[in-house]
Amino acid sequence: MAQTPPDVNGLSIGILGGTGDQGKGLARRFSIAGHTVLIGGRNAERAASVAAEIGLDGSDNATVAAQADIVIVAVPWEGHKATLESLRAELAGKIVIDCVNPLGFDAKGSYALAVEEGSAAEQAAAVLPDSRVVGAFHHVSAVLLLDPAVDSVDLDVLVLGDDREATDTVQALADRIPGMRGVYGGRLRNAHQVEALTANLISINRRYKAHAGFRVTDI
Amino acid sequence: MAQTPPDVNGLSIGILGGTGDQGKGLARRFSIAGHTVLIGGRNAERAASVAAEIGLDGSDNATVAAQADIVIVAVPWEGHKATLESLRAELAGKIVIDCVNPLGFDAKGSYALAVEEGSAAEQAAAVLPDSRVVGAFHHVSAVLLLDPAVDSVDLDVLVLGDDREATDTVQALADRIPGMRGVYGGRLRNAHQVEALTANLISINRRYKAHAGFRVTDI
Repeated sequence: MAQTPPDVNGLSIGILGGTGDQGKGLARRFSIAGHTVLIGGRNAERAASVAAEIGLDGSDNATVAAQADIVIVAVPWEGHKATLESLRAELAGKIVIDCVNPLGFDAKGSYALAVEEGSAAEQAAAVLPDSRVVGAFHHVSAVLLLDPAVDSVDLDVLVLGDDREATDTVQALADRIPGMRGVYGGRLRNAHQVEALTANLISINRRYKAHAGFRVTDI
Repeated sequence: MAQTPPDVNGLSIGILGGTGDQGKGLARRFSIAGHTVLIGGRNAERAASVAAEIGLDGSDNATVAAQADIVIVAVPWEGHKATLESLRAELAGKIVIDCVNPLGFDAKGSYALAVEEGSAAEQAAAVLPDSRVVGAFHHVSAVLLLDPAVDSVDLDVLVLGDDREATDTVQALADRIPGMRGVYGGRLRNAHQVEALTANLISINRRYKAHAGFRVTDI
């Protein structure tokens, strides 16, 4: 606890699926925080076009995965496994941050999908044995991330993983965004409930007309 | 949101498994808040003895389930289903608050157990079709609840259920304990991740040497 946090200054960040709201929002905030950020997408031209909207560069997911120091996975759950399988070589040796929430939606709202590997993060770890997979940034509101009027994003980011140096690094990255705090949240095997909790946040947002997040008390 | 919360003043509260730390801690706090609280246990004499330690009355679970206006289920997960099956008649028509977390423990810490019905709360609802089952009080630290030096228990209580009047009532009950706030957390089908999140809290407590809880931001 008293250790110096890792120095993440100067690390470049690639965002797979960065054309979606969550990825684009994180890209925007990390860029404001001083990082070089690359937006990845299935289609390089579309990724470049979306990236340009927020003053960034974009390319296809494979190029971004190869170029960035740290990679955030923000692709739709439907394409999660196949996308990561196709990028195994590019992502080898890197910290890969999975923020994907496998959710279903019906007339009663959202609910957690069953995942064979336990969670999206564990699926990423299974598909990418040579990467250092961390789960984080599940609960942050894309609306707040993209809103120019919001200076501070008020929540704790639960960071899950089995590699201490990697989770410390991702906590330090979360700390770069004003209002956010990176908090160690447990091993990867306990990622499912953190991903699934996004369904509860959606219920809370609907009931209270809010963009809710979580803070951890007593730490 | 602007509605008047239900008046829970004067409601008596029975706690099944009230001889455990979690149940005993909730009993203590609700008693301080002015409620009549009954401690239930498998063994009436032991329940009465534990209850006497905090100035309360205790009896066997069936007696407590029959007498109390609202019943909190704080039994060990191992006995959860059988205990509730045996109390179906006593619990009929009542609000039943399930705070049980189905967790396993091994050398790497704690993890969520798979539950056939989805969650402890959904199991309770399946076993007690004539009761109004709500999930709540999963994350509150028994240590804090029992500590006489702690005046305020600083966390939000996520309240889950499909019966609006019942969840409103349980939110109002949570509000009775200083520091606590009852927050609607979604339908019963989204209870699993809230129960399982207790495993993450245990990891957080170990890492940060804390008694952590969660607060919901922006509401």
